[in-house]
Amino acid sequence: MREMEPPYYAVVFSSRRTEGDNDYAETAARMDELAATMPGYLGIESARGADGFGITVSYWESEEAIANWKKHAEHLIAQRRGRGEYYSDYQVRVAKVERAYAMKRGQD
Amino acid sequence: MREMEPPYYAVVFSSRRTEGDNDYAETAARMDELAATMPGYLGIESARGADGFGITVSYWESEEAIANWKKHAEHLIAQRRGRGEYYSDYQVRVAKVERAYAMKRGQD
Repeated sequence: MREMEPPYYAVVFSSRRTEGDNDYAETAARMDELAATMPGYLGIESARGADGFGITVSYWESEEAIANWKKHAEHLIAQRRGRGEYYSDYQVRVAKVERAYAMKRGQD
Repeated sequence: MREMEPPYYAVVFSSRRTEGDNDYAETAARMDELAATMPGYLGIESARGADGFGITVSYWESEEAIANWKKHAEHLIAQRRGRGEYYSDYQVRVAKVERAYAMKRGQD
């Protein structure tokens, strides 16, 4: 992920997967790839447990960058499949990152 | 999770687990339980994949509530174990949630 100095924006996407694949992995990988080409994209992080609950956080320079990504034509199709097939429920939260710190083993 | 109307705060904790257990599950469960007793706590969501990368997002009414939780005595001990044993690296981001929306199957 690119070096990021707050303030910047985070989109927190919490979701529960439906049963069945429905090309989910393929679509998700394609969306990660596509997001990375968008102006103002800073990075993305994802985790999903064996219970089907997952959190993806994407990071953006501005609210405008988020709005642009949300309305990208191919992303709109994926969002529709998300609502119809991939997820039983999800929550989206748009948040302004005000401060950040990190630990890497060996530093502290 | 309690009904939440933005603005409120999110702490996004992204981490990679070390090998070995070191009572991690027990400590994590205890911290979830303890956080829920703190003033200003709104909720918590967690996901960790088989690769050891996980994201936990906790939600709070205010920055003050986050600061209080960060300095709770038992949480300080867990944080120290986090740096020393549980995680190979982590990032913490404190963000102000500005808007939120949700989908539940059957609605849209």
